[in-house]
Amino acid sequence: MPIYNAPLADMKFILNDVFKAEQFWQDNENLAHVDAATAEAILEEMAKFAQNVTHPLNRTGDEEGATYNNGSVTTPAGFKEAFKQYAEGGWIGLGADEEWGGQGMPKMLTVLSDEMLFATNPSFMLYPLLSVGAGMALNSYASQEQKETYLPKMYTGEWSGTMCLTEPHAGTDLGIIKTKAERNEDGTYNITGTKIFITGGDHDLSENIIHLVLAKTPDAPAGSRGISLFIVPKFIVNADGSLGERNAAGPGSIEHKMGIKASATCVMNFDGAKGYLVGKENEGLAAMFVMMNYERLSMGIQGLGASEFAYQNAAQYATDRLQGRSASGVQSPAKPADSILVHGDVRRMLLNARANNEASRAFAVYVGQQLDITKFSTDAEAVKKANDRVALLTPIAKAYLTDTAFNATLDAQMVFGGHGFIREWGMEQCIRDLRIAQIYEGTNGVQSQDLIGRKTIKCGGAFIAEYIQEIRDFANDLSADLNFIKDATLDAAAEVESVTQYVLEAASENVEFSNSAAVDYLHAVGLLSFSYMFARIANAAKDKDGEFYQNKLSLALYFVQRVLPELAVRIQKVKAGSEVIMNFSEDYFTNQA
Amino acid sequence: MPIYNAPLADMKFILNDVFKAEQFWQDNENLAHVDAATAEAILEEMAKFAQNVTHPLNRTGDEEGATYNNGSVTTPAGFKEAFKQYAEGGWIGLGADEEWGGQGMPKMLTVLSDEMLFATNPSFMLYPLLSVGAGMALNSYASQEQKETYLPKMYTGEWSGTMCLTEPHAGTDLGIIKTKAERNEDGTYNITGTKIFITGGDHDLSENIIHLVLAKTPDAPAGSRGISLFIVPKFIVNADGSLGERNAAGPGSIEHKMGIKASATCVMNFDGAKGYLVGKENEGLAAMFVMMNYERLSMGIQGLGASEFAYQNAAQYATDRLQGRSASGVQSPAKPADSILVHGDVRRMLLNARANNEASRAFAVYVGQQLDITKFSTDAEAVKKANDRVALLTPIAKAYLTDTAFNATLDAQMVFGGHGFIREWGMEQCIRDLRIAQIYEGTNGVQSQDLIGRKTIKCGGAFIAEYIQEIRDFANDLSADLNFIKDATLDAAAEVESVTQYVLEAASENVEFSNSAAVDYLHAVGLLSFSYMFARIANAAKDKDGEFYQNKLSLALYFVQRVLPELAVRIQKVKAGSEVIMNFSEDYFTNQA
Repeated sequence: MPIYNAPLADMKFILNDVFKAEQFWQDNENLAHVDAATAEAILEEMAKFAQNVTHPLNRTGDEEGATYNNGSVTTPAGFKEAFKQYAEGGWIGLGADEEWGGQGMPKMLTVLSDEMLFATNPSFMLYPLLSVGAGMALNSYASQEQKETYLPKMYTGEWSGTMCLTEPHAGTDLGIIKTKAERNEDGTYNITGTKIFITGGDHDLSENIIHLVLAKTPDAPAGSRGISLFIVPKFIVNADGSLGERNAAGPGSIEHKMGIKASATCVMNFDGAKGYLVGKENEGLAAMFVMMNYERLSMGIQGLGASEFAYQNAAQYATDRLQGRSASGVQSPAKPADSILVHGDVRRMLLNARANNEASRAFAVYVGQQLDITKFSTDAEAVKKANDRVALLTPIAKAYLTDTAFNATLDAQMVFGGHGFIREWGMEQCIRDLRIAQIYEGTNGVQSQDLIGRKTIKCGGAFIAEYIQEIRDFANDLSADLNFIKDATLDAAAEVESVTQYVLEAASENVEFSNSAAVDYLHAVGLLSFSYMFARIANAAKDKDGEFYQNKLSLALYFVQRVLPELAVRIQKVKAGSEVIMNFSEDYFTNQA
Repeated sequence: MPIYNAPLADMKFILNDVFKAEQFWQDNENLAHVDAATAEAILEEMAKFAQNVTHPLNRTGDEEGATYNNGSVTTPAGFKEAFKQYAEGGWIGLGADEEWGGQGMPKMLTVLSDEMLFATNPSFMLYPLLSVGAGMALNSYASQEQKETYLPKMYTGEWSGTMCLTEPHAGTDLGIIKTKAERNEDGTYNITGTKIFITGGDHDLSENIIHLVLAKTPDAPAGSRGISLFIVPKFIVNADGSLGERNAAGPGSIEHKMGIKASATCVMNFDGAKGYLVGKENEGLAAMFVMMNYERLSMGIQGLGASEFAYQNAAQYATDRLQGRSASGVQSPAKPADSILVHGDVRRMLLNARANNEASRAFAVYVGQQLDITKFSTDAEAVKKANDRVALLTPIAKAYLTDTAFNATLDAQMVFGGHGFIREWGMEQCIRDLRIAQIYEGTNGVQSQDLIGRKTIKCGGAFIAEYIQEIRDFANDLSADLNFIKDATLDAAAEVESVTQYVLEAASENVEFSNSAAVDYLHAVGLLSFSYMFARIANAAKDKDGEFYQNKLSLALYFVQRVLPELAVRIQKVKAGSEVIMNFSEDYFTNQA
C-alpha cells in the first residue's frame, strides 16, 4: 500500500523562510486577512484530507475507473462522498473571491494545497480543478447576472464546470473548430457540434455541470479571431436559480486511457443545446485563456505532486529493501544484506527526485506570488511587471515542471526494481496518471512554442531580460559562503542571456528556427529557474541551525553538480538550428526506402 | 488501429552494406551454410508472420491479459494458435544448433527477426524467448542425456522453458536466495521455495514447461558461490520421453502489471518438486549467466522493436494530422491546415526516434556478429577478442538500447498529442510494455554497475581500450567527405578514453565512486557506440546513389548535431563524483524534517 505524508515542513519553510509570505501578505492591504498561522492551519487541514480521504481512493479509483452507461457517467466508489466532504470544507473556493463564496486565499498558498491533492489522487483533483478554472473565466468575462447565477453554486460544489475546446480534428489549432453557435431571437444561442477530451464532461458529483464551450457564429471571421465562448449548462437554470429542463448537451462516450482512469474524459455532443454568450462574440479565446493559464500552472503542480508521492514511496522502499552490501563495507552485519540506500546509484535517483520536488515547490510558490501581485496589488507598475513575469513563466511552470517530474517518477519507479512494475506498489499508476500532464492543456511542445515565440521573440526578449535581471540581482547579493550556488546561478543566467540573444537573431533570419529550438530553450530557462530557486532556498537556510537546513544546502549542491550541467547540452541543441531537422522531405518520415 | 511494416529495407542495408554479412558468413566455415538470399528470405517470412499473426494480437492480448485460475494460466485468445504456427515454422530454434533441431542461423540475423516480434507483440515474444534462453543454458552446461531429453522438444515448441531466479526478498542479490535443494538417494533433488517474477511460469502454449531453478543445497557455501542450477519440469519426463506425473511445481498467482499483460508473470511455488542438477553443485550461476546474457541483448532488441513500432505510428499520424500552418507559409492551401510534419518540433521528436532505431539496429547486428565470432569462429585469438567485446557491450545493449528506446517511444507518443494517451492508438500500450525492459534481467542501474565494475575497472580498462582502438581505426579510415561523422566519432572516442582514465583513478581512490558514476558512464559509452554505428552507416551509404542513402547521411548528421552533444553532460556528471551523493545520512531520505 503506497504511503503519503504531506511535506508540510518543506511547505512551511518555503512560505515562511524562502518567500517570507506573511510579510508579503501583511504589506498588501488586499491580502492583509492572511497570516502565517491561518496559512499553516489550512495546509494542515488539507494534509489530513489528502492523507485520509483522497489517498485511499487513488488505487481503487484506478482499478474501477469512471464508467459510462446510457448517456451518463458514474465515478468510482467513494468519489461522491469525498467530493461532498471537499466541497463542504470550502476547498473548491479556497482561492476564489469572497464575493462569490470563496475564501480569498492567495495563490502562493493554494498551489501547496493543490499539490497535496494531486499527489494523492490526480483523477479526483481534476473534477474541482475544472470548476475553479471555469469560475475564473466567468469571474473575468461573464456579466454580473451570469456571475450571480453560476459562481456561488460552483464554489459550493452543488454545480461544477468544464472547458470544451478540443474537437476531433482540432486540438492545438482552435482556429479550425466547427462547433456552431446560432443566435436565437431571445439572445441565447443554439450550440451544435462535438467536443472531445472533455475532463469531467459528465459525472455524478454535482447536480449540474456548467460547460464553457468555444464555438463559431455563422458570420464569424475565419481562424482564432472568430471564436466565441458560451455557457452551456447540463440543466437549464430557471430564473429563480432552480434547475429546469435537461439541455441537449451530454456525453456520447468516455475515453479508455493510459491513466487518470477515475477522471471521466468525455466525448461531448451538443445538439442545438441552449447556450449563453460570455462577453462579446469573437472574443472567446481571451476568456478561455484566463482558464487555460490557470490550468497550466496547475499541471505543473500535478507534476510536483506526483513526483513527491513517487519520491516518498521510493525512499521508503529503498530504506526497507535489503540487497547487496555497501562498497565501503558491511553496514548492517546482523541483516542478510544492507539497505539499498547504501548504493550511490539508488541515492542518485532519489536525489534527482527530491531536488526536483524542492525546486518545483519553490517555483510554484514563486509563480503563485507573481499571480497574487497581478490580482491583489494596488501598485500598477508592480502589476504590469508581474503580468509579464507570469506570461513568461506559465509555459515553464506547465512544461518544465511536468517534464522533470515525469523523469523523477521514472527514477522513483526504478528504485523499486521489478516491484515498480507491479500495480500494488502504486508506482506504475503514478507514472500513467502523470504522463497526461505533459500532454494536455497544450502539449509541452506547444508550451515551448509559446515561450520562445509569444513570450520571447515577440517582445524582443524583454520578459526574459527582466527575469534574468532579477535573478542576477538576487545572486549578486548572496554572501560568500554561498558561492557554489551564486556562481552557478550567475553563470546560468549569462548562458541563458546569451542563448536568448542567439535565438532572437536566428529567428529573425530563419522562420523555421524557433519551432525547432523551442523545447531545448524552455529547458534551458527551466534549469536557470531551478538554480534561482535553489539560490533562494540556500539563502534562507544558511544561517539557521539544524540538519534540516544543512540538508537544504547539500541538496542545492547536488543540483549544481548533477542536474545543472544539462544546461550546456540544451544550449548546444538550440544552436544546432533547424536545417538539420527541416532538411528531410515530408515523404521521408513514412517511407522506409 | 496501429500499423506495422517490417523495416526490411534498413535491415538489408545493415546486413549487406554496413556489415557485409554474406562475406563474413562465407569466410567462416561454420557459417558457410548461410548466404544473403537465405537471410533475406528468412527476414521476409518473419515480416509476414509479425505483420499478420502477432501484430493483430497485440492489443487484444493487452485488453484480455493472461489469466490465472485454479493453479493454471490461460493466455489470451489467439496466442495458442499463434505459438503453434510460430513453432511449426521452426522459428523457436532459428538460432539453435542443428544437432538439436535448430536451424543454426547466426545471431546477426536472429536479432533482426526478434526485432519484428518484439515490435508487434512483446508479450507473445517473451514465451519463446525464455525457451531459447533456457535452451542455451542447457546446451552449454547440461549433460548429453539432459540435452537429448529436453532440447529437441523445446525447439519444436512442444515444451517450453523458464528461468527461476528471483525470490521475494532477493532480486539483484542472488547470493541470499532461500530456495532449497535436498539431494535424494537416486541423485535427483527435492526443490522447495518460492520464486517470483517468473515469465511464462505457467501457460497453455506447450505440453510441458522446463523450469531452470536456482537453489542452494544444505551444505552450500554462503553467497553467490553456493548456488546450483536445476531442471524442474512441470511434468516429470519418463525414460521414453513421454510425460509422467505432475511435479510439485506450479504457479501460485500471477502479477498485475503496468504492461506486457499477455505475458504471464508468475509466483512459482516449489513444494519438494523433483529437480535434476545441471552441471555441478555450486556452479549454477555461471550457467544461468549464459541465459542472462542472451536475454540481456534481447531486452535491447525489445527496446528497438518498440521504438520502431512507435516511430512508424507517430510518423503516419503526423502525416495525416492537419493542425496549424508552416512557419514558411501555407503548404497545403486546399486543406484547412498543414500536416503537423511542417513543425520542426514534431520532426525533432520523430528524428530522435528514427536515429535511435537505425543506430540501435546496427548496434544489435554488431553485437550479434561478435557473438557469432565467439560461437562459430575457429580462430582462438578472434574468439578471445570477441568474448571480451561481448562482455563489454552486453550491458550497453541491454541498458542503453532500452533507455534510448523508452525516450523514443515517449517522443512518439507526444507526436499524437492527447490521442497518444488513448488506448486505441496503441502508443500508451507500447510504452507500458516497454518500460519493463529497463527493469528486468538486471535493472539498467545494475547493468551500469556491471559495465563500470566487472567490465572496466576490473580489467584496468582493457576491454574499452580495445573497443576504442577499433572505433578509432575505423574512423581514421573514413574519407574526407565524411569528416562530420569522422571528427565527431574521434572526438567522442577521445572523450570516453579520457573519462575512462578518470574512472579508473577515481575508483582506486574511492570505493563509492563507481556506483555513483555508473549510469552516466554507460550512457557515455552508449553515445560513442551510436556514433560509431553512424560512422559505419555513413561509410556504407556515401558512394551509393539515391535518396535512401542520402537520407542515411542526413540522419547521421542529425545524430551528430542533436543527440551526441549529450556526451559532454554525461562526462561532467561522472566527474561530479560520489561525495555529493553519499553526503546525506540514511535517515535523510525518509525524513522530511
